[in-house]
Amino acid sequence: MATATETDEFVAALRAQSRRYHDRHPFHRAMNAGALTRRQLQAWAANRFYYQENLPRKDAAILANCPHREVRRRWILRIVDQDGTADGEGGIEAWLRLGEALGLTREEMGDDRHVVPGVRFAVDAYVTFARTRPWTEAVASSLTELFAPDLMAERLTAFERHYPWIDRPGLAYFRSRLTQAPRDAEHALEVVTAYCGSPAERAGALAALSFKCDVLWSMLDAIERSCADGR
Amino acid sequence: MATATETDEFVAALRAQSRRYHDRHPFHRAMNAGALTRRQLQAWAANRFYYQENLPRKDAAILANCPHREVRRRWILRIVDQDGTADGEGGIEAWLRLGEALGLTREEMGDDRHVVPGVRFAVDAYVTFARTRPWTEAVASSLTELFAPDLMAERLTAFERHYPWIDRPGLAYFRSRLTQAPRDAEHALEVVTAYCGSPAERAGALAALSFKCDVLWSMLDAIERSCADGR
Repeated sequence: MATATETDEFVAALRAQSRRYHDRHPFHRAMNAGALTRRQLQAWAANRFYYQENLPRKDAAILANCPHREVRRRWILRIVDQDGTADGEGGIEAWLRLGEALGLTREEMGDDRHVVPGVRFAVDAYVTFARTRPWTEAVASSLTELFAPDLMAERLTAFERHYPWIDRPGLAYFRSRLTQAPRDAEHALEVVTAYCGSPAERAGALAALSFKCDVLWSMLDAIERSCADGR
Repeated sequence: MATATETDEFVAALRAQSRRYHDRHPFHRAMNAGALTRRQLQAWAANRFYYQENLPRKDAAILANCPHREVRRRWILRIVDQDGTADGEGGIEAWLRLGEALGLTREEMGDDRHVVPGVRFAVDAYVTFARTRPWTEAVASSLTELFAPDLMAERLTAFERHYPWIDRPGLAYFRSRLTQAPRDAEHALEVVTAYCGSPAERAGALAALSFKCDVLWSMLDAIERSCADGR
């Protein structure tokens, strides 16, 4: 078991990964500065949708690998948040509405026609990670949610200011994450500090969070590159 | 796509697998005839608990492999049924209470000390099947629930008649399955008939259900054998 000091250092090291979070990516900075065209925002939303629609499968893979009922009982809420419990509900639906607010159809998001290879590889790597790595590492990889509320708050302000042509209800997903992400991050942090007791396990958790930062960063690389060609 | 006649034949072939269901196993017949000792019932319950506690992970593996939100929204209820949403809830908890009613402690069920190798292999094979086979086949493998309500009704009558020393609340799991199993089987049958359109997919679904019958049957083989040695 880790001492209290070791746990504090571990949490600090996890939080320090924020320096690798995708809010610092040039494409993301351009987005929040109001410098993206409608077409670039569409490319971003359509590609990011591939990430969104795979989240429930990633989280179900964690459930499938987790032997603790009390962890599963809370983790399952993430799946419900994304899928909803009925038509018209859930984060995936909210993202489809964001796409519509940006001028995309549900069909062109749903059939993944705009998804570029780099995004597909990154998202698939994330799902495979959750399937194949120890469940505690997969939980740790979700800890980018520690950094998400700040990003979401900044994004909401930026979108309302710079892209007033986007209908406000289209931004509902970002708003929902302002409360969901802290709740999810708190639980994930509890789990990781409780179940990663050895130095090797803590190193594994840090590497998992670093990997996840790479997933998000490389998605923006691929999206930015595809837009640069005017595709 | 299958014709209506082909679908009817497919459903009939699935239902016909009932001839391979574990209610016909000699150990199961002996149980319902009141011929088992307290010790044999304990062995059965402790081993069967290994199956119960793995069900949420099996169902989460199906969620992880299923690309359809509307299927996931219903399938996730199975996980909630087994795990519950809070301490003291759910099918796994109900099975622990059954074990207590039979004279087992939670500790000896929870640490799997009574689980015999044949049961472990069979249950692990079932979870691996759900992880690695097409999600539609994993859904088809759950269709033993078509046969479960009859078994549960018969078991309830038999236990109340032959084993009156078991506290009635200990039988709550069996009672809950009288309503859950038909609901679950109906959904699984809808999914399998909707998504197994080709002859190869229907053959895969039939093989999956046959495999699942083997899982349940071989568990009873192993439990019976372990009891025969007086272990």
